Amino acid sequence: MTQPPPLSATLPQTELTTHRRLRDQGSLRRADLDAILDAGFVCHLGVVVDGRPLVVPTVYGRDEQQLYLHGSVASRSLTGGTPVCVTVTHVDGLVLARSVFEHGVNYRSAVIHGVPRRVTDPEEKLAGLRRLTEHATPGQWSYVRQPNRKELAATTLLALSLEEASVKIRTGAPDDGDGPDAELGLWAGELPLTSVWGAPVPDPRLSPDIAVPGHIARREGTRHG
Amino acid sequence: MTQPPPLSATLPQTELTTHRRLRDQGSLRRADLDAILDAGFVCHLGVVVDGRPLVVPTVYGRDEQQLYLHGSVASRSLTGGTPVCVTVTHVDGLVLARSVFEHGVNYRSAVIHGVPRRVTDPEEKLAGLRRLTEHATPGQWSYVRQPNRKELAATTLLALSLEEASVKIRTGAPDDGDGPDAELGLWAGELPLTSVWGAPVPDPRLSPDIAVPGHIARREGTRHG
Repeated sequence: MTQPPPLSATLPQTELTTHRRLRDQGSLRRADLDAILDAGFVCHLGVVVDGRPLVVPTVYGRDEQQLYLHGSVASRSLTGGTPVCVTVTHVDGLVLARSVFEHGVNYRSAVIHGVPRRVTDPEEKLAGLRRLTEHATPGQWSYVRQPNRKELAATTLLALSLEEASVKIRTGAPDDGDGPDAELGLWAGELPLTSVWGAPVPDPRLSPDIAVPGHIARREGTRHG
Repeated sequence: MTQPPPLSATLPQTELTTHRRLRDQGSLRRADLDAILDAGFVCHLGVVVDGRPLVVPTVYGRDEQQLYLHGSVASRSLTGGTPVCVTVTHVDGLVLARSVFEHGVNYRSAVIHGVPRRVTDPEEKLAGLRRLTEHATPGQWSYVRQPNRKELAATTLLALSLEEASVKIRTGAPDDGDGPDAELGLWAGELPLTSVWGAPVPDPRLSPDIAVPGHIARREGTRHG
């Protein structure tokens, strides 16, 4: 299989990705897109069903070229050639300003547009599921039992090109620190929000002599997002 | 203004809300919907633009009957009568099974369908923005400067009925604890994920003698979601 050329380091500005609002929060760096995708494992997948939007959460992984999506939730709506929109958002905190109007959210968000492809080749499907599994839980693919032929056939995997995407990022303090409202004497700033992995909870049916493997145990207390 | 009748305690099963997959994860309790909405403040708003889906994150609040959405991000697409789908998802942890196939996510998710209404009456807009502000930061509305007429006019607020909604919840251990894979001797269970509010970060331009107000300070270290 020939390798496709690498995607551009600058995100393309298309009809769908050009920022119309809050342009200063837009980023055109593909590195920002990759970082946002790598920081999460659940996306919101949007499809059009009978002319109406449907947005469902699902898990994803990626390689350099494309996103892999667990597609069952939307599979009845994705019968080939159907455009989707995939959005990944990390909420980093509340922006607490001196006025209601200047309130906001610190966040990182990626929006990917495209027509997904159903992965049918068993080898590619296995590779894609490996990306997906390792994305959520690094080290897990080689620890657990991998899919057999029947399970592989029962799994719907979608591949979506990472070519057409847009990124928005907001960080830092509110914007009204040098306006007239700064004279009000009110506290203003950011209230950060952080996601943290907790202590592994064993399946109650698990034999107590089976220890938590290192790749899972060492995540406890680390930051996610 | 006459009060509309309360919404049904059981969520309606319509063409859009009937669960087709993972039916055991579906809930028809409106109380579950309300709890999921109250646990977050960012939703994913899906709209159809030129026949293609667009999914953007935005903030929301609610009353007993409807969701209030900060609608600017999607306002160019919402010119009246346009159906939307609003999804709120809380990711509670990874479900780590003995086989790749049984892996999953513990989560709570609400999906609301409807045609939003642009709120234009200044009094209703103010009340809706209050809900939205207090939803994200209880106590903040009366602490900061409230919107003036010009700011109110510049804000797009949408109201969406909470009538047509569906809920999915998954909790607990993986499902393969009593299958043949349980004999593999592998660790299995849940890796919980928790969102926590951090220490307030003052705006660098803030005078150091302005203290963090109690309604913000007391959130530090509390769980979100």
